[in-house]
Amino acid sequence: MKTIQGPAIFFAQFIDSKAPFNSLEGLCEWAAKLGYKGVQIPTNVDFMIDLDQAAQSQDYCDELKGKVASYGLEITELSTHIQGQLVATHPAHDIMFDVFAPEHLKGNEPARREWAIDQVKKAAIASRRLGLKAHATFSGSLLWPMVHPWPQQPKGLIEEGFQELAKRWIPILDVFKDQGVACCYEVHPVEDIHDGVTFERFLEATGGHEAVSILYDPSHFVLQQLDYLSYIDHYHEFIKAFHVKDSEFNPTGKKGTFGGYGDWRDRAGRYRSPGDGQVDFKGIFTKLTEYGYDGWAVLEWECCIKSPEQGAREELIIGIDPYL
Amino acid sequence: MKTIQGPAIFFAQFIDSKAPFNSLEGLCEWAAKLGYKGVQIPTNVDFMIDLDQAAQSQDYCDELKGKVASYGLEITELSTHIQGQLVATHPAHDIMFDVFAPEHLKGNEPARREWAIDQVKKAAIASRRLGLKAHATFSGSLLWPMVHPWPQQPKGLIEEGFQELAKRWIPILDVFKDQGVACCYEVHPVEDIHDGVTFERFLEATGGHEAVSILYDPSHFVLQQLDYLSYIDHYHEFIKAFHVKDSEFNPTGKKGTFGGYGDWRDRAGRYRSPGDGQVDFKGIFTKLTEYGYDGWAVLEWECCIKSPEQGAREELIIGIDPYL
Amino acid sequence: MKTIQGPAIFFAQFIDSKAPFNSLEGLCEWAAKLGYKGVQIPTNVDFMIDLDQAAQSQDYCDELKGKVASYGLEITELSTHIQGQLVATHPAHDIMFDVFAPEHLKGNEPARREWAIDQVKKAAIASRRLGLKAHATFSGSLLWPMVHPWPQQPKGLIEEGFQELAKRWIPILDVFKDQGVACCYEVHPVEDIHDGVTFERFLEATGGHEAVSILYDPSHFVLQQLDYLSYIDHYHEFIKAFHVKDSEFNPTGKKGTFGGYGDWRDRAGRYRSPGDGQVDFKGIFTKLTEYGYDGWAVLEWECCIKSPEQGAREELIIGIDPYL
Amino acid sequence: MKTIQGPAIFFAQFIDSKAPFNSLEGLCEWAAKLGYKGVQIPTNVDFMIDLDQAAQSQDYCDELKGKVASYGLEITELSTHIQGQLVATHPAHDIMFDVFAPEHLKGNEPARREWAIDQVKKAAIASRRLGLKAHATFSGSLLWPMVHPWPQQPKGLIEEGFQELAKRWIPILDVFKDQGVACCYEVHPVEDIHDGVTFERFLEATGGHEAVSILYDPSHFVLQQLDYLSYIDHYHEFIKAFHVKDSEFNPTGKKGTFGGYGDWRDRAGRYRSPGDGQVDFKGIFTKLTEYGYDGWAVLEWECCIKSPEQGAREELIIGIDPYL
Amino acid sequence: MKTIQGPAIFFAQFIDSKAPFNSLEGLCEWAAKLGYKGVQIPTNVDFMIDLDQAAQSQDYCDELKGKVASYGLEITELSTHIQGQLVATHPAHDIMFDVFAPEHLKGNEPARREWAIDQVKKAAIASRRLGLKAHATFSGSLLWPMVHPWPQQPKGLIEEGFQELAKRWIPILDVFKDQGVACCYEVHPVEDIHDGVTFERFLEATGGHEAVSILYDPSHFVLQQLDYLSYIDHYHEFIKAFHVKDSEFNPTGKKGTFGGYGDWRDRAGRYRSPGDGQVDFKGIFTKLTEYGYDGWAVLEWECCIKSPEQGAREELIIGIDPYL
Amino acid sequence: MKTIQGPAIFFAQFIDSKAPFNSLEGLCEWAAKLGYKGVQIPTNVDFMIDLDQAAQSQDYCDELKGKVASYGLEITELSTHIQGQLVATHPAHDIMFDVFAPEHLKGNEPARREWAIDQVKKAAIASRRLGLKAHATFSGSLLWPMVHPWPQQPKGLIEEGFQELAKRWIPILDVFKDQGVACCYEVHPVEDIHDGVTFERFLEATGGHEAVSILYDPSHFVLQQLDYLSYIDHYHEFIKAFHVKDSEFNPTGKKGTFGGYGDWRDRAGRYRSPGDGQVDFKGIFTKLTEYGYDGWAVLEWECCIKSPEQGAREELIIGIDPYL
Repeated sequence: MKTIQGPAIFFAQFIDSKAPFNSLEGLCEWAAKLGYKGVQIPTNVDFMIDLDQAAQSQDYCDELKGKVASYGLEITELSTHIQGQLVATHPAHDIMFDVFAPEHLKGNEPARREWAIDQVKKAAIASRRLGLKAHATFSGSLLWPMVHPWPQQPKGLIEEGFQELAKRWIPILDVFKDQGVACCYEVHPVEDIHDGVTFERFLEATGGHEAVSILYDPSHFVLQQLDYLSYIDHYHEFIKAFHVKDSEFNPTGKKGTFGGYGDWRDRAGRYRSPGDGQVDFKGIFTKLTEYGYDGWAVLEWECCIKSPEQGAREELIIGIDPYL
Repeated sequence: MKTIQGPAIFFAQFIDSKAPFNSLEGLCEWAAKLGYKGVQIPTNVDFMIDLDQAAQSQDYCDELKGKVASYGLEITELSTHIQGQLVATHPAHDIMFDVFAPEHLKGNEPARREWAIDQVKKAAIASRRLGLKAHATFSGSLLWPMVHPWPQQPKGLIEEGFQELAKRWIPILDVFKDQGVACCYEVHPVEDIHDGVTFERFLEATGGHEAVSILYDPSHFVLQQLDYLSYIDHYHEFIKAFHVKDSEFNPTGKKGTFGGYGDWRDRAGRYRSPGDGQVDFKGIFTKLTEYGYDGWAVLEWECCIKSPEQGAREELIIGIDPYL
Repeated sequence: MKTIQGPAIFFAQFIDSKAPFNSLEGLCEWAAKLGYKGVQIPTNVDFMIDLDQAAQSQDYCDELKGKVASYGLEITELSTHIQGQLVATHPAHDIMFDVFAPEHLKGNEPARREWAIDQVKKAAIASRRLGLKAHATFSGSLLWPMVHPWPQQPKGLIEEGFQELAKRWIPILDVFKDQGVACCYEVHPVEDIHDGVTFERFLEATGGHEAVSILYDPSHFVLQQLDYLSYIDHYHEFIKAFHVKDSEFNPTGKKGTFGGYGDWRDRAGRYRSPGDGQVDFKGIFTKLTEYGYDGWAVLEWECCIKSPEQGAREELIIGIDPYL
Repeated sequence: MKTIQGPAIFFAQFIDSKAPFNSLEGLCEWAAKLGYKGVQIPTNVDFMIDLDQAAQSQDYCDELKGKVASYGLEITELSTHIQGQLVATHPAHDIMFDVFAPEHLKGNEPARREWAIDQVKKAAIASRRLGLKAHATFSGSLLWPMVHPWPQQPKGLIEEGFQELAKRWIPILDVFKDQGVACCYEVHPVEDIHDGVTFERFLEATGGHEAVSILYDPSHFVLQQLDYLSYIDHYHEFIKAFHVKDSEFNPTGKKGTFGGYGDWRDRAGRYRSPGDGQVDFKGIFTKLTEYGYDGWAVLEWECCIKSPEQGAREELIIGIDPYL
Repeated sequence: MKTIQGPAIFFAQFIDSKAPFNSLEGLCEWAAKLGYKGVQIPTNVDFMIDLDQAAQSQDYCDELKGKVASYGLEITELSTHIQGQLVATHPAHDIMFDVFAPEHLKGNEPARREWAIDQVKKAAIASRRLGLKAHATFSGSLLWPMVHPWPQQPKGLIEEGFQELAKRWIPILDVFKDQGVACCYEVHPVEDIHDGVTFERFLEATGGHEAVSILYDPSHFVLQQLDYLSYIDHYHEFIKAFHVKDSEFNPTGKKGTFGGYGDWRDRAGRYRSPGDGQVDFKGIFTKLTEYGYDGWAVLEWECCIKSPEQGAREELIIGIDPYL
Repeated sequence: MKTIQGPAIFFAQFIDSKAPFNSLEGLCEWAAKLGYKGVQIPTNVDFMIDLDQAAQSQDYCDELKGKVASYGLEITELSTHIQGQLVATHPAHDIMFDVFAPEHLKGNEPARREWAIDQVKKAAIASRRLGLKAHATFSGSLLWPMVHPWPQQPKGLIEEGFQELAKRWIPILDVFKDQGVACCYEVHPVEDIHDGVTFERFLEATGGHEAVSILYDPSHFVLQQLDYLSYIDHYHEFIKAFHVKDSEFNPTGKKGTFGGYGDWRDRAGRYRSPGDGQVDFKGIFTKLTEYGYDGWAVLEWECCIKSPEQGAREELIIGIDPYL
């Protein structure tokens, strides 16, 4: 029987200006000591990976892979969440997203978008060079301000939005297909792909492009009360990556899903360390295993109560081990 | 002991081009036959009320009141939901809201806003002339696209938004205060006042303006899983108007609160005829009565399954009668 | 198949100084108009019944029965709740219970108790003369201040208490047995018989006296979160009388079962009009019918929200009719 | 961010006539080996502390502190639960509470009370000498037999009771205030302060005395079905001490909250070893941390199934560690 | 929008030797008075219909239809539940099923089966002659004793069973297809088609025969804890007939789904009058309407507590009316 | 206080043709290393035990016991599940059960039955020789195909079935009684003793035979939604053996309890490794301990997701240790 690989860890939330969190080597050593077997690598941080080189040079990739392997670790996937997001942004969010752009592209959405598209394509090639089967990214969002059907939307607006989104992504997806790498969209609030219905809308708009895949992260489904176990029943064939991230939803008489424009800590729905939230990881590991998922289980950590180090340490104990 | 008044009905969703739904007289006759005692009147439909006249002329108001009374009915509140919405709109929604503007103001948000502000002020004066204590409206929205905290928002953005919203509303609220009429904001998705936290934000931004009140409608809270009974515990002193509207929330493995950009009928959260949804009206009537609410219980009808006529007829039986 | 008789109504909470609630005739006429078929009669109110006469004179009883019958009603049971309570009182409550004693016995618990015992015995005889099979009363309470096991109680204290309680009741129970009338203790907070365990303790202390029976009232079980449906499974053979009374329990972060010494209206557990509380009457009627209960279903009304008249009227519609 | 201190252990339930449980040294050694960092010390046991000396002599206190420190432990709080209880007792409980009085005061409630008041005052001073910020006690109870509103109470009785309770405590509270020590009442059944409502009643009766604080113990709230998580939302500013104690409530068709006068083991609500009951400690640790609680988490152990040693050992593993 | 037709009533459980329940005319008059609009007619009772004639003679059918119409009623469907059952029986049940066979076929399963097949075919033709679109029947059962996978079954046994079942039904289904009538299998315990999985097995075994349809009856799903609302999501396109029948499932510490070989009344799962059980009819009517079901809602009554007459009367009020 | 013994392990599901699972010695060594203290031994596998010898020879038994003891293990119980099953089989299952019979008895149910009866008797004697107090077996089944009351059963059929079952078992039970060994029937689907009601039926049919006991295994109760905690309340005096086995029940819109003739993995109800299913083992250990159960807790492992080795290892950690 196929089994899930793990435990692995996504480095994004641990990167810091202080050692050992300010170098790939430092992070790898730290993760290996904690017992992790795999690492998911963000591509928008200089000291992690140089995407331009990685896309061109097999030597560079072999060296990178070897460096990670020297700590007894494997790369699980590269991540272009940030760049994927910039492939499609609604004007209402444009200024806020500029923080993720290279200095010379800030304030220039068309150029920023072009750069982002190029980055994601390069990540596809680099993934293949690194021997990876899956890649982690965001779809971006053209429609989020229309998430509630008031004011009434012009007929066809949603369909148009997904047509445009598909149009931007299809050339990228073609690269993924050529490289034999699954393009896994993390299904996430604010992204146009934020649930099952929107994944289907996008898949259809791309004509059922075979590179279209899912990064499954149950924490985002708790925040919208979507049945994350049934989600696996519906979409298991598309799930090629998996974030072990926990969250909780505790509505009160003052706030519900929409959250009252609060900070994370003040919200009814918020992220927690694995094991402290409401996600039934046993149920998820059971279902993924039943459907033959043999990709990685990658801890993504975000918690408003605990420190990241405690989260990383505990997650190893609580979240993953029993099923591997 | 004070008791809730009712049953009443909000005419907005019943207005139609066909008799008896195309005249105030027709609607009143129909409602009275169904057994209603009060009617909530939208002010953006010509044949219902002329706000300009109503604000100026006591005779006009007396005549209007008499006409309604001739059917054995009372006016419960006027409504400026539409105009209130136009007091504050985010650019992402501007074009879509133009449908509510007079022809000559379409495409001109500043002028449209000025007109809207004037309308709501006039409704305050008209309400006083009609002997009403409460008025129903929307706050409008400057911040809705930021409902989820991604992308990360510039520090202070939310506070600024509410400052601006308060700045626009304070002159209007002053008119309400002068007229002795409560300005009841229907707490509603997409409006900046959409839960308890945001109501508090707004109240604080207005310096605790004494005209600031709440139109309580539980159906909108079901859609965000907010505890609508506790809501009454927290905010009962501000509740001066009440919509009897039902809704349901049935998340699946494909969709949750965010709804996948679907039509009403396809959403996990959707409005239903009173009695067909998940709202515990007994609990609400009990709490409102305990806190001494003596305003009206006004049916607002919206259902994707039944016809409006059936809804109006049944609601009378199921929803309201037992508590009056 | 045997079926439950009803609907009936307990007059106690409706008695008032104003007509029609200040005479047996007035109350009967009122109840009959509402559609009731039976009435439960409190015996501590002069104009309802004269227990001394009723115990002695068959003529008096026949006349009383005839008077009630003239309204198309039957007497369901007599009630000596008040007198039964005075058979056993803890000193901590003595002064408060004096309100129920005849003037000349106030402040003299031994004499008050003697009077109470005599009253209950007379009610047994009167019941037989009236052709009744069951009688409604309270057990009184010697132990209630020890309801929580802190401070630690001397070993055997509880057993002693029930021995004393049984000693006081056995002579009364003998009269009930002689008259062929079931002595139904309403299982009720503060009474020593307040749940199933305490009923068993009492039954055992009386040596399984065959007159010992239960007046089943689910409202008191909701207040202590006892499973009132299973209660019927355990004790159905003893249930000979039944109060249709509703209640609700809504604990918060400020109060739970103990109630914070609040007034009824402020308590987490409180009585409500039938249909407004949390009692599953369908479940109860089903179980009682399955076990062959053929006594009366008697509305006992107590609600902090509605008026008694509304309660009596609605109960008829909601609570009882479907099962008869 | 402030964090909870721990794990600590309350010695009261472990004291025994056999070593190592019959000396402070023995208990400290045992607790330290189990991994505890703090100990809560009962003051009514001779070999633990001599309150008279401790109130007078800084040397005595320094020595005591040093002795505890020699095991790598800190004193978290002193406890005068027993003496606090004797500050106010209802006559219905007086004889039973005599077991806690010194021999020469038994049967003499006024003298017993005076002694108790003196003891608690001395504990306040001793606490300051030991460098402690909080103290653990009981409020005592004047009103418990009136916990259920039957028989009907004379108007104002409850208010009077709290006035008297405050009158007795204010002189004590003044000492606490002078010493800069929080007087933490363990909110507990039978005590007049047994939920949120009664805490507010007492606080108000003392004129909002600033020494009035709460010892939060969720196990007592499970027994009355009070929402112990919301409790923290309401009263966090008063919570200065915390007992990690677990309990469960399993009502049946025979018994509910009131418990049928049963022994602990036979009750629907009963205490359990931490981790074996129904308390959501994760939720509690999260909320306390969010509100900045930086006092101690002190295990109080009481279980009718397991031995105390097993309880102490497991609690360390299950209950506290994850949040420190 | 298409809407459900109703209310209708299935005559099977009401037939009796006493008037008015011993003739079609009597039953029709009784049903019409109760307010029903349609009647479902069992075909194994002589005085209801003569299937041989009905299959041959259009005159006979016209006359029958006219007779029913004379009471203001329509025939909704014919039923061959009994005959359908006899198309496939496991030897373990053969003797018990003989009660449904004509006298001369008892004890002769092959002949009995042939007769049954012929009857169902005739019902198909008669249905077309009567202008009906749907027919109600049972699939019969070859595999029920193997419902639990112990003892371990020979590999392929289940598949073989469904192959045989399909082989027997395909010739019948061909007749239904020719006549343009849907062959609706009531999904029911003991039948080989007893849930969704088995319906799919059968459908596949028939090669997706287009006459294969479903008679949806939620009461049978409550008995097996199948999610009857999701069932509609999965199989709505096959649902062509609908029984309004209620049931409840109340497991205890003594019995669960399997029922302990008890009588209906003693079982954890048992049928109840509509409105007295646990079926959420509002949810069902909503879903069926959403999916465009425009067939009949037919009361099937079976209850161990109430009389059939009461059930028929109440169902009309409670179960169906609100959605038509 | 009496405590449960453990952890132990049932060897049946671990036996394999590969070492160390193909010899008693190998299995014992493996189990002891995992930390088990006891082993339950199936008697239908040659290399485990020779029942004929064990029944005759004390030496053989002493040697066997010694061999097991040499690994630091105790025998907890012998098992004749397979042979007990063959004491009573319904013809519908006969062929499938032949797999368990010795070669020369296949196809000859009477002889097979005689052999089975003899085996179980010998196991009783062997158990006594081995110093065991309890024995594990199945009741067999004569009635399972009648588990659902359709088709209607001849009056008295169920009673007859249990009479026959008792008739077959009484001679065996007499041997158990003589040997002072409890005959524990594992309450299990398909066995005639499959819940509480059927246990009572059997007990009554044997005239309350004192050897009749229960092997309690909660996993089988989850599959039928029987309240397995209340089960202990009802039948604790009969529980003499206990399987720690877990299971889950997850009905969907396609399948419920009956399971659609699916394989284990595809069923709504299915077995899982201890800790991965829905059984509340804490509740069970608490109740068994409260009722003084001092027999063994024996892991029986069966899981469609994990390997047996992982299950055995984890169960030790999760399931049993905390209560011993």
